[in-house]
Amino acid sequence: MLAQSPASARNQALTGAAAALRARADEILAANATDLAAYDGLPALRDRLRLDRRRVEAMAVGLEEIAALPDPLGHVMAQWTRPNGLLFRRVSTPIGVIGMIYESRPNVGADAAGICLKSGNAVILRGGSDSFHSAAAIHAAIQDGLRAAALPEASVQIAPGRDRAFVAAMLQASGLIDLIIPRGGKGLVTRVQAEARVPVLAHAEGLCHTYIHAAADPGMARRIMANAKMRRTDVCGATETLLIDAAIAPNLLPAIVADLGGLGCEFRADAAARAIVGDLPTASEADFHTEWLDRVLSIRVVAGVDEAIAHIAAHGSEHTEAIITEDAGVAEHFLTATSSAVVLWNASTQFCDGGEFGFGAEIGIATGRIQARGPVGVEQLTTFRYQIRGTGQVRP
Amino acid sequence: MLAQSPASARNQALTGAAAALRARADEILAANATDLAAYDGLPALRDRLRLDRRRVEAMAVGLEEIAALPDPLGHVMAQWTRPNGLLFRRVSTPIGVIGMIYESRPNVGADAAGICLKSGNAVILRGGSDSFHSAAAIHAAIQDGLRAAALPEASVQIAPGRDRAFVAAMLQASGLIDLIIPRGGKGLVTRVQAEARVPVLAHAEGLCHTYIHAAADPGMARRIMANAKMRRTDVCGATETLLIDAAIAPNLLPAIVADLGGLGCEFRADAAARAIVGDLPTASEADFHTEWLDRVLSIRVVAGVDEAIAHIAAHGSEHTEAIITEDAGVAEHFLTATSSAVVLWNASTQFCDGGEFGFGAEIGIATGRIQARGPVGVEQLTTFRYQIRGTGQVRP
Repeated sequence: MLAQSPASARNQALTGAAAALRARADEILAANATDLAAYDGLPALRDRLRLDRRRVEAMAVGLEEIAALPDPLGHVMAQWTRPNGLLFRRVSTPIGVIGMIYESRPNVGADAAGICLKSGNAVILRGGSDSFHSAAAIHAAIQDGLRAAALPEASVQIAPGRDRAFVAAMLQASGLIDLIIPRGGKGLVTRVQAEARVPVLAHAEGLCHTYIHAAADPGMARRIMANAKMRRTDVCGATETLLIDAAIAPNLLPAIVADLGGLGCEFRADAAARAIVGDLPTASEADFHTEWLDRVLSIRVVAGVDEAIAHIAAHGSEHTEAIITEDAGVAEHFLTATSSAVVLWNASTQFCDGGEFGFGAEIGIATGRIQARGPVGVEQLTTFRYQIRGTGQVRP
Repeated sequence: MLAQSPASARNQALTGAAAALRARADEILAANATDLAAYDGLPALRDRLRLDRRRVEAMAVGLEEIAALPDPLGHVMAQWTRPNGLLFRRVSTPIGVIGMIYESRPNVGADAAGICLKSGNAVILRGGSDSFHSAAAIHAAIQDGLRAAALPEASVQIAPGRDRAFVAAMLQASGLIDLIIPRGGKGLVTRVQAEARVPVLAHAEGLCHTYIHAAADPGMARRIMANAKMRRTDVCGATETLLIDAAIAPNLLPAIVADLGGLGCEFRADAAARAIVGDLPTASEADFHTEWLDRVLSIRVVAGVDEAIAHIAAHGSEHTEAIITEDAGVAEHFLTATSSAVVLWNASTQFCDGGEFGFGAEIGIATGRIQARGPVGVEQLTTFRYQIRGTGQVRP
């Protein structure tokens, strides 16, 4: 049984699956070619579906890296003894069965299967209809790994067809599936969140803010902003809104606009920002609620840290926010009073990533308040059990 | 704001509320008399609704005990530095807004408010219709405490009337309520679990097992069984089913039946048990799925630990199970392979209680796999935030 299997068996399944991905590369690419030939979606999204030898190798390396992580199961998270002599231990255990619902990138299935296997959880994979044959070929390689480790093949299952009713059934499968993790666009995630009768770990969007405080180091602020907005614009940790103190904006905002404009960024600015940098387009209130995921930045000038915190509370998605300041007291206030899953001081919001956290791999990022927040790695896919050792104690 | 209030303010509100409960005792008892006069439910449940000076004092002492607990907020749960110099901290924070739905015991409202306040969570209390006036009088005392500590009165809210639509609205209030905790009978809890669009921490039932292994100390087994079944029969940690090894049953089962029978217990026994103690009523398969909450014990003879584990997996509610044995290897196997929230070795299942765990207070017991399991105390009503401190790092 997977939940009680030794780490060695789970790791053997992972390295075996990596080897099988390489051995089955031709087969996986042929399946992917079938998917690509049938693809009739947005041309811009076609590349997400495409696999090549490099991407297959990256999936295999990803599984090997997960195998090399420490075992997250069986940790004694807390231990104490009561006056009556009872020894209490809180021990990490698998959650159970994870339902993974994802869109077109087929490699997400391999990553998710690897993270679930490592953490002793069974997983049911339901990829996008577009990637059906690719997902099945990847699944076959993972089954090879499970067989090589003598673990149940049912540990990693795949939706049997493209019927959308299967997703609906997963969302209703309370008692059979313990946790649903959707990965994809806001439409997919919000539908899952609205319809699921099973707990969900997810983020519907990453409307991340960088706040430049009056006491920011201007050079650092410019370097961080260029990275936070423009390193990649299509990731959930990209900054979507710049909040900048009125005291520093006249000196700093023109340089930031020049930096980012030079990288191809457009702007949506409030009146105060436009008074400083004249030819910026006007931001609407809706713009400040928009996750651009593109080369666009909303800009608002604020009076200070509390106005920045209030703006984030009103417009943010509880994902990731950063403050740039040399004032440690203001930074601590921001780090404490901002309720987002991840808050940074003097660093780029694009660090919100399981790899950058040192988790080795992530299955998604959570912005809810329950079970886990921020990047979800193998440790966040565990729960716990209390083991109590006695010597015949009865309760008075 | 409650979430960022210092522990001193939250503790002051708790001790202030305790003082107000005492000061308003007459008013609370008068409100309770109004509820009792209007009561038209089951006579057996009438006592749950009744308050007296002793019960009001117990509520006040309970709040003072919660005030004396360590602050669960702001703990650095983990800390590490990455090679790029970023300092990561995982810090405990409140969950947000808790929705507490409970049945007739009015004191549950005071306990729940206290635990939520201590953990920095706002709470919306919706007690049973029967206890409407009692709950309102208790709520008024808690408001006194909040005012004395200059915390927002909205930190502890009460349903404005007895309209059942309010419960339905709470269950749908995703984004407004972060967590629902129902306390009451199986009917209430299963309805909440089925209808909620908000995460739920609860147990619908506690179908707890005590397994007596062949290598049990017979005297210890008898003492623990008497306590596990009969100390109180109406609590969720009471043992409902005895599993006993065939190797020890002929010697031990007659004594256990005599012990428990002498305390007024009835039995439902499988064929093997009836072959040992002849005049026991026959257990149906349904009996092994029944949480008696009464002076009734189901009995099944098993071949060994793995049959016991399999029986629990098929019939249990993932609440609390115990093994009685002197064989440490068998005990470890049971503690590892039984997936319930609480597993005990050589101790009574009735220890499943926040007070007995040393939590100081509990708001309920959870049998799900997400966020918390077992007794839910102040620590389990926290979530976390990642605070990341940098020196200008940008992501490559």
